[in-house]
Amino acid sequence: MNDQKDLNLLSVKDKLEHFLLLSGIVVKSTKTGKEYLDLELRDHTAVRNAKMWANFESFISNAKVGSVVKILGVLDEFNNQPQIKIDRIRLATSDDNVSPADFLPKSNRPRKEMELELSSRINQLSNEHLKQLIERIFNEENFEKYKQVPAGKAWHHAYIGGLLEHTLEIVKICDLMCDIHPEVNRDLLISGAILHDLGKIEELEFESGFDYTDKGKLLGHIVIIANIIEKESDKIDRFPEELKNHLIHLVLSHQGKLEYASPVTPKTLEAIILYHADELSAKTNAYKCAIISEMGSGKNWTRYLPLAETSLFIPKIFAKSDDFKDTLF
Amino acid sequence: MNDQKDLNLLSVKDKLEHFLLLSGIVVKSTKTGKEYLDLELRDHTAVRNAKMWANFESFISNAKVGSVVKILGVLDEFNNQPQIKIDRIRLATSDDNVSPADFLPKSNRPRKEMELELSSRINQLSNEHLKQLIERIFNEENFEKYKQVPAGKAWHHAYIGGLLEHTLEIVKICDLMCDIHPEVNRDLLISGAILHDLGKIEELEFESGFDYTDKGKLLGHIVIIANIIEKESDKIDRFPEELKNHLIHLVLSHQGKLEYASPVTPKTLEAIILYHADELSAKTNAYKCAIISEMGSGKNWTRYLPLAETSLFIPKIFAKSDDFKDTLF
Amino acid sequence: MNDQKDLNLLSVKDKLEHFLLLSGIVVKSTKTGKEYLDLELRDHTAVRNAKMWANFESFISNAKVGSVVKILGVLDEFNNQPQIKIDRIRLATSDDNVSPADFLPKSNRPRKEMELELSSRINQLSNEHLKQLIERIFNEENFEKYKQVPAGKAWHHAYIGGLLEHTLEIVKICDLMCDIHPEVNRDLLISGAILHDLGKIEELEFESGFDYTDKGKLLGHIVIIANIIEKESDKIDRFPEELKNHLIHLVLSHQGKLEYASPVTPKTLEAIILYHADELSAKTNAYKCAIISEMGSGKNWTRYLPLAETSLFIPKIFAKSDDFKDTLF
Amino acid sequence: MNDQKDLNLLSVKDKLEHFLLLSGIVVKSTKTGKEYLDLELRDHTAVRNAKMWANFESFISNAKVGSVVKILGVLDEFNNQPQIKIDRIRLATSDDNVSPADFLPKSNRPRKEMELELSSRINQLSNEHLKQLIERIFNEENFEKYKQVPAGKAWHHAYIGGLLEHTLEIVKICDLMCDIHPEVNRDLLISGAILHDLGKIEELEFESGFDYTDKGKLLGHIVIIANIIEKESDKIDRFPEELKNHLIHLVLSHQGKLEYASPVTPKTLEAIILYHADELSAKTNAYKCAIISEMGSGKNWTRYLPLAETSLFIPKIFAKSDDFKDTLF
Amino acid sequence: MNDQKDLNLLSVKDKLEHFLLLSGIVVKSTKTGKEYLDLELRDHTAVRNAKMWANFESFISNAKVGSVVKILGVLDEFNNQPQIKIDRIRLATSDDNVSPADFLPKSNRPRKEMELELSSRINQLSNEHLKQLIERIFNEENFEKYKQVPAGKAWHHAYIGGLLEHTLEIVKICDLMCDIHPEVNRDLLISGAILHDLGKIEELEFESGFDYTDKGKLLGHIVIIANIIEKESDKIDRFPEELKNHLIHLVLSHQGKLEYASPVTPKTLEAIILYHADELSAKTNAYKCAIISEMGSGKNWTRYLPLAETSLFIPKIFAKSDDFKDTLF
Amino acid sequence: MNDQKDLNLLSVKDKLEHFLLLSGIVVKSTKTGKEYLDLELRDHTAVRNAKMWANFESFISNAKVGSVVKILGVLDEFNNQPQIKIDRIRLATSDDNVSPADFLPKSNRPRKEMELELSSRINQLSNEHLKQLIERIFNEENFEKYKQVPAGKAWHHAYIGGLLEHTLEIVKICDLMCDIHPEVNRDLLISGAILHDLGKIEELEFESGFDYTDKGKLLGHIVIIANIIEKESDKIDRFPEELKNHLIHLVLSHQGKLEYASPVTPKTLEAIILYHADELSAKTNAYKCAIISEMGSGKNWTRYLPLAETSLFIPKIFAKSDDFKDTLF
Repeated sequence: MNDQKDLNLLSVKDKLEHFLLLSGIVVKSTKTGKEYLDLELRDHTAVRNAKMWANFESFISNAKVGSVVKILGVLDEFNNQPQIKIDRIRLATSDDNVSPADFLPKSNRPRKEMELELSSRINQLSNEHLKQLIERIFNEENFEKYKQVPAGKAWHHAYIGGLLEHTLEIVKICDLMCDIHPEVNRDLLISGAILHDLGKIEELEFESGFDYTDKGKLLGHIVIIANIIEKESDKIDRFPEELKNHLIHLVLSHQGKLEYASPVTPKTLEAIILYHADELSAKTNAYKCAIISEMGSGKNWTRYLPLAETSLFIPKIFAKSDDFKDTLF
Repeated sequence: MNDQKDLNLLSVKDKLEHFLLLSGIVVKSTKTGKEYLDLELRDHTAVRNAKMWANFESFISNAKVGSVVKILGVLDEFNNQPQIKIDRIRLATSDDNVSPADFLPKSNRPRKEMELELSSRINQLSNEHLKQLIERIFNEENFEKYKQVPAGKAWHHAYIGGLLEHTLEIVKICDLMCDIHPEVNRDLLISGAILHDLGKIEELEFESGFDYTDKGKLLGHIVIIANIIEKESDKIDRFPEELKNHLIHLVLSHQGKLEYASPVTPKTLEAIILYHADELSAKTNAYKCAIISEMGSGKNWTRYLPLAETSLFIPKIFAKSDDFKDTLF
Repeated sequence: MNDQKDLNLLSVKDKLEHFLLLSGIVVKSTKTGKEYLDLELRDHTAVRNAKMWANFESFISNAKVGSVVKILGVLDEFNNQPQIKIDRIRLATSDDNVSPADFLPKSNRPRKEMELELSSRINQLSNEHLKQLIERIFNEENFEKYKQVPAGKAWHHAYIGGLLEHTLEIVKICDLMCDIHPEVNRDLLISGAILHDLGKIEELEFESGFDYTDKGKLLGHIVIIANIIEKESDKIDRFPEELKNHLIHLVLSHQGKLEYASPVTPKTLEAIILYHADELSAKTNAYKCAIISEMGSGKNWTRYLPLAETSLFIPKIFAKSDDFKDTLF
Repeated sequence: MNDQKDLNLLSVKDKLEHFLLLSGIVVKSTKTGKEYLDLELRDHTAVRNAKMWANFESFISNAKVGSVVKILGVLDEFNNQPQIKIDRIRLATSDDNVSPADFLPKSNRPRKEMELELSSRINQLSNEHLKQLIERIFNEENFEKYKQVPAGKAWHHAYIGGLLEHTLEIVKICDLMCDIHPEVNRDLLISGAILHDLGKIEELEFESGFDYTDKGKLLGHIVIIANIIEKESDKIDRFPEELKNHLIHLVLSHQGKLEYASPVTPKTLEAIILYHADELSAKTNAYKCAIISEMGSGKNWTRYLPLAETSLFIPKIFAKSDDFKDTLF
Repeated sequence: MNDQKDLNLLSVKDKLEHFLLLSGIVVKSTKTGKEYLDLELRDHTAVRNAKMWANFESFISNAKVGSVVKILGVLDEFNNQPQIKIDRIRLATSDDNVSPADFLPKSNRPRKEMELELSSRINQLSNEHLKQLIERIFNEENFEKYKQVPAGKAWHHAYIGGLLEHTLEIVKICDLMCDIHPEVNRDLLISGAILHDLGKIEELEFESGFDYTDKGKLLGHIVIIANIIEKESDKIDRFPEELKNHLIHLVLSHQGKLEYASPVTPKTLEAIILYHADELSAKTNAYKCAIISEMGSGKNWTRYLPLAETSLFIPKIFAKSDDFKDTLF
Repeated sequence: MNDQKDLNLLSVKDKLEHFLLLSGIVVKSTKTGKEYLDLELRDHTAVRNAKMWANFESFISNAKVGSVVKILGVLDEFNNQPQIKIDRIRLATSDDNVSPADFLPKSNRPRKEMELELSSRINQLSNEHLKQLIERIFNEENFEKYKQVPAGKAWHHAYIGGLLEHTLEIVKICDLMCDIHPEVNRDLLISGAILHDLGKIEELEFESGFDYTDKGKLLGHIVIIANIIEKESDKIDRFPEELKNHLIHLVLSHQGKLEYASPVTPKTLEAIILYHADELSAKTNAYKCAIISEMGSGKNWTRYLPLAETSLFIPKIFAKSDDFKDTLF
């Protein structure tokens, strides 16, 4: 798969012999009653509509959303939109050595490095109750999801591994605030930082694109993690009731205001720090990604971004700070 | 205790030989260093400050907030506020046959009648999972609290038994909406109505007055009941995951908007009904109580009520509707 | 007309021999200067654009918006939108036995049943002034409109007979609240409920679709009904001034908040009940209709609804509650 | 009465032999059961509490709020507040040649001058329907009130004659806008300007102070004037329906936004001008009065004014602009 | 150029021999690799896309946005949008006697008349410091821009000369308010009125259309003019510090509220007048232009205008007020 | 002065021989016409009212607000408020070796240490234009004020040296964000962080308490620093125009939203980071100070804090994180 061209770089008439992620599938009929296959396919750079006009009967009996497929076809255009015309299609097999996650955008930080950074930080917790609780919550299944889940659908850290990258950034900011303010309960704050968005592993579906699950829509990630803490701490011997309530308060209040969907506002020193550390990390990443995604436009400003309520300036170079001189602008 | 005069009817210089609820206690010193006892005492009509200047040493070793006490004293006045001067004080004993709840405002509806109405409605649930869940949650301890807890600190149904009265009213409204709209899932909606505010038994302290607990401030009653449903449904054999999520959604969204502290907005037909039935019951009771509490003022309008953002009209008579004729105004 | 196929079920190339409601008509020219007729036609299921390329001269001299027409034609497609190509067209005559209202969506409740329910409830009013006032306002012309007017353009009860259905639902809710709270002035509240939205008979145009009239845009239905009450009560002997003001207050404040276009906020017990009963009825109907309109989509959730600020869950079956078992989800 | 000292200039122990306006009266009892008279008295500079301890029996049988009284007494102090101790009191008689309006703050502009300016402007209206309507509305009784009513309780033009002064200022601004923009319908705009706040003659009570009437609270001045226009235009032969609706639209929308209690927002060119002309006049007067009332404080800034959401700068001199030089600051 | 047909009146297939303003230019490639020229051209009535398929090499070496060009071509249509197909193109020369400003919408008031009105008003200022400051700021370069700059991109006075027209209107309103209220510091207020929006000469680009400059987006016109006053007053001998601060306060606060981008709210009498005079002038012009732009639609109402949050009524005639009779509606 | 008792620890009847800061002074008269001195005096722990009844004539001829005085007197009580009765008073002299700043609350961090940290960070700037600009702005006079000015009147870092402490904290957070995100222009961001609140040296008066200056109220600190950057960068050879605008944008937008008084919202990556770093530092300090100030109350919760819109939890110990164990709660 290494050498297939990225979807967003293909031109009309280009041939495809590609592995792609199947993110939508439905059988439709033309007005004259002929059945055809209408698919949504993606790699980590783009999502494309695809049509297959014949010989798909055996394929559809096994196909399901979230699978990787291999196709032969050509890039066409319909209504000014690129569209793939498929000649042949099959499900990928284990021999193909591809996995769905390869076809979704992902964090630039190596996952292994991030995992180690997280484990190491958990190990430094001195409060045994909190450490034990986090280790219980990070059972194998949850941890597997936690390493992959994006921090959101579209705005910030919206890529595989995004939540982990985001969390590690918040942990760094919180540790800095603890260095400056010795009054802060460091173990409690860091535990809250690590767990605050963990409910997203159940709130989001990220196998074949990023979307909300039914449970995610009905409960939201904030209540999901609150429930998890409640249940897991019950299983730990003599977990202090007050400590549990303070930790749950951190996750409940981390969006800072009722209108941002936190059911309580921050009422502790740790809670107010976690909220603002989260904001700092999220907004920095969101604005950076928005700027990067329009760096090729040749303009000085991005389009209007509803969530930022403005357009953003695109600097000529996003230079490493070491190289930065008067030439920036 | 039957024949003691209500606190709000006593005049300065009146003698007291009263049972009262101890809702605050602290030892203070005069500027000259003399210790005295500063108390807060209440019956169901009023709260009064009290001072005791001597002979309280043996009393304070056993006294604690939430106890009933018997006092001898006289009503005094200080800074234009009534104040009780205590000569003798003792804790009530079981022989006195008084209980703290006697000294708090309470619902006009007989408790027994309300209990029966609730039990009867639970029995009519046809969904066995929901019925079983509610019965588990209403274990003896919880049910005892549920029957007493007020629906709030001050605004609506703010009296002992208030939550139960409020809940039964919502259940009636919801049943009417189900009669009109057969598409509504009646068992789900009624279960949500019964449970929606149950978290208040842990959010509020109502032994010696009405106030928030630490847990109530940190988590709020909405998350408390969500956690309870999560944990209790786990203990029921094959409780459907979707049914659980929909029920939790009802309690999470019952305040209708994020800014009213619901972490999710109503997303089901049942949820939108529950929200508005709750509003209808709560506001009707709040406005009625506000009007009644100023009926003796001789004015046509109440003071300005911040929560209503207006003052309210006080009708000349609050007649039974049967008696209502042109004479109302 | 009984057996013509609903517009929303027709496919491209289907022939039409249909009665339809003319909801828009204009003569246009092609770039080469040829005149053609551009029409908007509707039945109770859909609205369609239509073109007629010749022989329409005699038709247009009599045609006007709000008339029923009979057409021969075929369903075509233009820019991915269905479009009717008309071969012949004529105005319906009295012999055709069709009326414009047949081509607009309408309430599921039989109109006769609703009329009787309303009359019966008015008869139960014991306050003679209020009963007389309502009867004056419901003169033949107004009552004819009242039975047909929708409760709104698009959101809730947006169909012929919608206001009457909505009003009867509110009356039921208000009567329940009066049963629970004897302090409420039942006759006043029920009168307010019956009249609260009556101004919509002048605010809305509902002959050939649902839209606002000039008067509706300039005054709004709230002031329109206030003016009607003011004028009609003047014609009743010794109608109490205070009663009139309280009734007008009910209609003025029934939208509950200034930002919802009520010029005063609810200041009486009856006013706060009417506001919340209206909300309960309106939102329940709006959410139900939104869900039903997308039940065929095969999805679990409706599209995002701006007025609800969310998408809504679509249950698998909208079963009668009697049939409801664990199978709901 | 000419030479009595203004209430706000009296010091403790000063003797009073004053005519004052009775703005509140109630009989109270001391704790020992002795009855006394508790009054509120005012002149145009201040409001004062007063007590009379004996010999008031004959007086109270005739006294009522809104009467002028003559008192003998002395200025006392209670709880740091000035309080009048009355020795003798009687109602003013026609011989005393005083009227209640003398004891309320009033406009600096001579009333006669303002009346003439208004009449003259009405006479210039060229649209006979509008001129006739305004003359009908300004019958003797209404005009008498219109000349006196304040434009509000406390914020702007809150003095006798304030509405008339405010209206004339708006008329001048509107005439200027018509001079600049010939597209504006001048007669309609000026008629709207003259009538826009007339409902305040029924909304406010201004005989013995400034307060809202019951009708004012239940309906508001906007709906009151809309009702008046509706009823009076009906009595004019062939008053155009559209003209009536546009005029009512002007008065309904003149507060500019729903949240400011207008039931419709401005939808015509005349309406948007009237709204902003009203704002310009009202805010200028409100800020000017707020600054003047604190000019004696010796400070550069007024106290914080909630309605302005700021404190205001107090210039050293409020010079006529002709005299203005660099010395202003 | 006098006799070329306005762009918005041209039909498909019409020939063009037109001078037009070049407001956008880019070289693109077809899918088969052929280069073509993609232009944006405008006159004072419309903006049109244009394509040139050959022989544009020599042209593009000199062309730049903001130039006037002469073209030969024909009006085509693409995707239902008008598009110009260019056969020949050249830059305009001085002999052509055309200037970019001829191709942008412009004020109806003669520029010379407006210049004189402004100069005359500046001459009447009696405060020498203020007069000197304004004259410094209105150096030749700034004054040239000031006479042309629109008051905004799209909402009010959005045409060449718009700021000057808007400013003169505000000056008239402010002078009227000074006539009525002698307490107002007239020279200060009029100076603030003249300068308040001057920052727009740097905030907006208006050579080839109306758009924001980078500086405009980063600083905004309010801070730009504040900086100018700060710098220029420093160069005037003994310019009073307080006078400077008060003048800067006027320009900073003239948008009235923080959420409208004023960094301080109005805190002086002059500031509150300037804010409301600005509103009155801006909204009147905006609503008038919106109505005029849709007068040809044949409808009674404009489309929904997001900035007005409503649609607006379109009167049958926008008659001069002298002609106005009952016939208006 | 070392050994005088803190004002907030004095009891009624305690003798004072104290140096205190004079923060208010006015001569008043009793009702009997006797003049007395009414003063406001403070040390770093409290502010107290003081009265002097005789022998103050020579003192007042030299006294002015902001001076240190020495008094002999006694602590009295009036209306339940502590009040100092002064027997003798004199101005402090240079021999007394006291300065006004000794009587205001101040940062816990040693000023010298903070100065060095700031200088060191400025030295590390690699962009010579920015370094030169900051050095110009930090001339001796400005730097002297910068080291002392509080970051606000009452909410966060509201003590002498507060702005410097706050700035250094933001710089640390910004440097961390630059370490994580190499795309950020570090020199620009750090320069913006250092300068962002510098306008407070002119906005606030902090000689004798913390209050706003006239200039501060009229312009605000944001525009003040923007003006300073504009003027000082003009004096630097070839300071890049774009760099200046970007730096000014940082200071203008650092409050993040228009309604928080920023005239533009953050539109660059650096701007969004600075805004959230400022929030994180400010809120952490504000909440910490609010909690510490009520640690002695014996309660679990602070009073309701309007700016936090909640009360805050007070932990039993504010332990260093190293010591933190399960014992926290």
